[in-house]
Amino acid sequence: MSGNTFGRIFRVTTWGESHGKAVGVVVDGVPAGLTLMRDDVQAELDRRRPGKTDIETSRQERDRVEILSGVFKRKTTGTPIQMLVENKDVKSEKYEKRKTKPRPGHADLTYKLKYGHVDYRGGGRASGRETVGRVAAGAIAKKILEAEGVEVLSHVVRAAGVEIDSRPSVEEIRKVTKKNPVNCADTTVADEMQEQIRKVKKKGDSSGGVVEVLALNVPAGLGEPVFEKLDAEIAKALMSIGAVKGVEIGLGFEVSDRKGSEVNDQLRFEEGKIVSETNNAGGILGGISSGEPIVARLAVKPTPSISKSQKTVDLEEGKEVDLELEGRFDPNICPRIVPVAESMMALILVDMMLRGGEIDPDQFGGSV
Amino acid sequence: MSGNTFGRIFRVTTWGESHGKAVGVVVDGVPAGLTLMRDDVQAELDRRRPGKTDIETSRQERDRVEILSGVFKRKTTGTPIQMLVENKDVKSEKYEKRKTKPRPGHADLTYKLKYGHVDYRGGGRASGRETVGRVAAGAIAKKILEAEGVEVLSHVVRAAGVEIDSRPSVEEIRKVTKKNPVNCADTTVADEMQEQIRKVKKKGDSSGGVVEVLALNVPAGLGEPVFEKLDAEIAKALMSIGAVKGVEIGLGFEVSDRKGSEVNDQLRFEEGKIVSETNNAGGILGGISSGEPIVARLAVKPTPSISKSQKTVDLEEGKEVDLELEGRFDPNICPRIVPVAESMMALILVDMMLRGGEIDPDQFGGSV
Amino acid sequence: MSGNTFGRIFRVTTWGESHGKAVGVVVDGVPAGLTLMRDDVQAELDRRRPGKTDIETSRQERDRVEILSGVFKRKTTGTPIQMLVENKDVKSEKYEKRKTKPRPGHADLTYKLKYGHVDYRGGGRASGRETVGRVAAGAIAKKILEAEGVEVLSHVVRAAGVEIDSRPSVEEIRKVTKKNPVNCADTTVADEMQEQIRKVKKKGDSSGGVVEVLALNVPAGLGEPVFEKLDAEIAKALMSIGAVKGVEIGLGFEVSDRKGSEVNDQLRFEEGKIVSETNNAGGILGGISSGEPIVARLAVKPTPSISKSQKTVDLEEGKEVDLELEGRFDPNICPRIVPVAESMMALILVDMMLRGGEIDPDQFGGSV
Amino acid sequence: MSGNTFGRIFRVTTWGESHGKAVGVVVDGVPAGLTLMRDDVQAELDRRRPGKTDIETSRQERDRVEILSGVFKRKTTGTPIQMLVENKDVKSEKYEKRKTKPRPGHADLTYKLKYGHVDYRGGGRASGRETVGRVAAGAIAKKILEAEGVEVLSHVVRAAGVEIDSRPSVEEIRKVTKKNPVNCADTTVADEMQEQIRKVKKKGDSSGGVVEVLALNVPAGLGEPVFEKLDAEIAKALMSIGAVKGVEIGLGFEVSDRKGSEVNDQLRFEEGKIVSETNNAGGILGGISSGEPIVARLAVKPTPSISKSQKTVDLEEGKEVDLELEGRFDPNICPRIVPVAESMMALILVDMMLRGGEIDPDQFGGSV
Repeated sequence: MSGNTFGRIFRVTTWGESHGKAVGVVVDGVPAGLTLMRDDVQAELDRRRPGKTDIETSRQERDRVEILSGVFKRKTTGTPIQMLVENKDVKSEKYEKRKTKPRPGHADLTYKLKYGHVDYRGGGRASGRETVGRVAAGAIAKKILEAEGVEVLSHVVRAAGVEIDSRPSVEEIRKVTKKNPVNCADTTVADEMQEQIRKVKKKGDSSGGVVEVLALNVPAGLGEPVFEKLDAEIAKALMSIGAVKGVEIGLGFEVSDRKGSEVNDQLRFEEGKIVSETNNAGGILGGISSGEPIVARLAVKPTPSISKSQKTVDLEEGKEVDLELEGRFDPNICPRIVPVAESMMALILVDMMLRGGEIDPDQFGGSV
Repeated sequence: MSGNTFGRIFRVTTWGESHGKAVGVVVDGVPAGLTLMRDDVQAELDRRRPGKTDIETSRQERDRVEILSGVFKRKTTGTPIQMLVENKDVKSEKYEKRKTKPRPGHADLTYKLKYGHVDYRGGGRASGRETVGRVAAGAIAKKILEAEGVEVLSHVVRAAGVEIDSRPSVEEIRKVTKKNPVNCADTTVADEMQEQIRKVKKKGDSSGGVVEVLALNVPAGLGEPVFEKLDAEIAKALMSIGAVKGVEIGLGFEVSDRKGSEVNDQLRFEEGKIVSETNNAGGILGGISSGEPIVARLAVKPTPSISKSQKTVDLEEGKEVDLELEGRFDPNICPRIVPVAESMMALILVDMMLRGGEIDPDQFGGSV
Repeated sequence: MSGNTFGRIFRVTTWGESHGKAVGVVVDGVPAGLTLMRDDVQAELDRRRPGKTDIETSRQERDRVEILSGVFKRKTTGTPIQMLVENKDVKSEKYEKRKTKPRPGHADLTYKLKYGHVDYRGGGRASGRETVGRVAAGAIAKKILEAEGVEVLSHVVRAAGVEIDSRPSVEEIRKVTKKNPVNCADTTVADEMQEQIRKVKKKGDSSGGVVEVLALNVPAGLGEPVFEKLDAEIAKALMSIGAVKGVEIGLGFEVSDRKGSEVNDQLRFEEGKIVSETNNAGGILGGISSGEPIVARLAVKPTPSISKSQKTVDLEEGKEVDLELEGRFDPNICPRIVPVAESMMALILVDMMLRGGEIDPDQFGGSV
Repeated sequence: MSGNTFGRIFRVTTWGESHGKAVGVVVDGVPAGLTLMRDDVQAELDRRRPGKTDIETSRQERDRVEILSGVFKRKTTGTPIQMLVENKDVKSEKYEKRKTKPRPGHADLTYKLKYGHVDYRGGGRASGRETVGRVAAGAIAKKILEAEGVEVLSHVVRAAGVEIDSRPSVEEIRKVTKKNPVNCADTTVADEMQEQIRKVKKKGDSSGGVVEVLALNVPAGLGEPVFEKLDAEIAKALMSIGAVKGVEIGLGFEVSDRKGSEVNDQLRFEEGKIVSETNNAGGILGGISSGEPIVARLAVKPTPSISKSQKTVDLEEGKEVDLELEGRFDPNICPRIVPVAESMMALILVDMMLRGGEIDPDQFGGSV
């Protein structure tokens, strides 16, 4: 019951179904006095918005956000901020037809088993459209982080079997990523990825990939051992995104084949500050941030919606059937996970920083 | 602040440092009337206990657990169960000497940065010894799961570069795993793993690996989208274990290179029940359990304690130093993570099942 | 930070300011399959709605609720239910004029001290209008309780110095209360109350009173000692309502002058069931419901808005000023607290019943 | 399930039964670097300890506390602090005899109904002995508050029908209260109270009273509307103490008969600071502290244990019986509630101050 709230102190509650009237989010715990305009949120939603290129679903949504509370004269008041986006481009007929036939790889069957009564139109609550609320909340979290000098970045490092070969610089991630539809930090690789994504799509199939999220300039000392370690909270935050089947920090699964002497980040001084030679730990040791960049990667599965014929069951008629899906789907979901992954990272960082006293809630003009 | 409690309804709070007086756990939310004897808990602690073989630390702890509350006449009363294990084999001198020199790959530096005042003896709270509380609590969780017919199993699938080549049967995992010191489900592979672990150890180095956790017969419908999805909660639970740098569900990171048609689990009927041809999803779709076995894997980094010389800094003298660690450490921590991983899986399952109404708290003799 | 969510399993998050665009609530944790129509919620909101009689504020709000998510084909889906009511009759000018002069007895000063940046129009978030969300959520909670045979009732037992002299029957509370504008279970007393309320109002002053809330047919065994006892949770729930300065259970403050032999409820059998001779405990012993009716009472302070001249300070000019309030205010808030008190009681009962397994979340058609 | 943890950021979990091996508490979220010695905690426990005078139970417990974790070299480390007190003077025979006969006014019946399997010896978990953990945790909270200049005080204002007639000064509460066994701030009234308590006791009966708790120098801005208002959290904290049947803030129930012009605290300047003429609000407006002293009062019921004959039922034999209790009980529990009430107030204040950023967790030497 009731898993739609994220965070302990900075609490985000999303709501809404893919083909319902609207989707949205309440953000509670935003410090008072933060300048917040509709455009701050809209800009992030525009990054998430579908229908911009041929490697995305063709559903057209302007996703115009409305802020209904918690902001007065362009500043937050410390009270809950309700943001709402109406659903416009809704075509439910195809879902109506196949509602008794759970789509393989989708949540159709598990929602049916759990809730019995399901809003199946467009995937209902299990749709990627649910992330509108995450990204709107993430936009606020990012503004707070910005004031603290913390930066969150995400980019696609692998898609449809194409991988970026060398680690891009922060500058490349910042600049190149937004300039291509796959959100890759290398233009050439981005082109290859697009090509492969299209190729797979043409065969009626879909492809997956790996998305990386970075957080720069995160203060040391974040994370609450032993259960609410920073990496544990990041893992939960990122794994809660649909289609994600794995999360790793720093070297991640690669550590399993390495030796201690290779993995341990040796320490030295640099201009009086302690730094580590390498960042295999991904910025987190013992569940606590070290001050080095935080590095996490997500395994993204191929979009389960494919037009190839698949085997499933008809729940009503009790028989096995072949299913050929029509509809509008993303051939590869990695590019669109980028802003969502950034949002989740921003949300958990703000929550942990407020908990740990690293963000002073009064800094924007609050309690005197 | 305060991250030592796990679970929402079945709440586990661990406490204690490696070289303090004792380590322990309070378990709150255990249904009343469950038969619970000291031996139920001791048996699990014995699996976790160090010093049994040469691929473990030589610290000798009998780890005799004492139950101080919440049990009356061998049955739980529904009140908090406090369990305590004294620390006996404590040698703090070596830690005393190197207390200003943070060990690379350890939490020494981040604890110092976060808390300032640190109990550095034996790693303090960041020591693997903290898991005594997890395993004691896990023993209770497992008893509850047992009454529901749910089984949790864990085994080492990769260690020191040696991997089990074919998927072992449940029967092999159940039986073979406990019979070898590496907790591998294949005796021959286990031998190879041991040999490699020893080889690396001899060079003053350490090795990592991958541990798998399974949960069988988990009821469908578990998990609370969109933030408290079952996979998100499992990711948090497992990532909170020290030395874990990655968590994956089902196919995990392998999905990134596959196509939708390969990853989607096709559905069919078997004796009137809906089953899936494959279990690439690892038993979870849309964050909700499907009834198929739950499969998770953890990336375990090589023990950061190695005797090879490493570079670090002396915080007091402000200079760079070479560090050669003496002490007692596990050359590979995978085998000892097995009971901990099982415990964390058991804890999250019981918590989610109580939340979802899948476990009736009155079944053992409670409220009438 | 972030205190706008109520409940652990049945989680209610309210949002919105008095003169903002809208007020509303997200209810998370509603079992799937419950029949829910707009009218179910509207009926409760109509009881709360202002402007119906001369002993209420003259603000006119139709308070038409819109359900934006979580309901499909007239049934709940188990996903969050977002409900929204637009603010229509908003006159902010008077607040604009006196915005630097905190009104005595109001939250103006404390909000200013806490948040710095405040939406002062109409009391902002501290306005009674915030309870729209509570009552809308309460309507859903009541529907769930109804299915369990639990009934929540509230009535005014004291107002403007007039007290109901004898304990009314449940039947009278059910029927008479709704038929008079003061929500008193005795028509004659209700008339007297109204008269006194008007008398005080004419003098430019306001009056207070006492509201009682009952819960009938509550299952025994509800409440989680030692900190989340049923009475502790009820106290929090009711004290969170604006204008409430005291909460008591059963005999309440009267116990302080009584002897143990007078207060203890003696037990006996009635038709094989254990019953108590009296219900001085108000249905709760040791923080756990006994099965007897739950009885709580709230002390309601006189509305702080009065037209009589009062002394306050001008925050901007830094001098003391006399304040004469104009505006639209309730001369006595007790009658309008009745539906809110019922709602809070319903919310906490549903939350505790879901936690304790007393409500099966699958009963309305959920997980199979 | 699982109601034994209090607080969101400063988290206190108590455990233990009256006649079990021990009672204790884990305190999680204590800032690192706070000086904490066994004696700091022992001093508070000594105030709570029974058996000191003839108006208390004759149970003799030294209540020697042992700190098992979280403190190193006399300073807190930021990790959980486990404190334990053994039960010594345990006489369970009388409870054994009457275990099937629930004592009127006690939690015997409700625990039986809720948990089925109960540790009935000495009241088990429902015993006042459970408050050992609260007071031990409260001792730590008080040390933190002390560092912030916040003072918590409690005293008995009414007992066995005797009431203190005029409001004592803070100085009297500080000094006189601790000097008499009833914890009253007026020596003469204290004598009268004692006399009345003894008189009632001689008749085999018990008496109740009212306890007041104050918090001085609390920063303005504490409390999280709309559900986690400071008064709501205080109400929960205090109502969770056994034997408490009512909580009021400031004027409390007296507001119900007053007019707005009498209750509203008028504001003025005093040496440039805004102060209120009166403190009818008890330091809280709109659920947020104003900077004025916080004033709360609890209604304490007469100890349910009396030697007078009472009617109850025999659960096993299914018949009505007369019950005459032997044993050791407090004739009036008010004096012993004083340190517990202080503890609960201290706990909620520290939790809210940490949440709101009013306490800097790093001030004692933490994160650098």
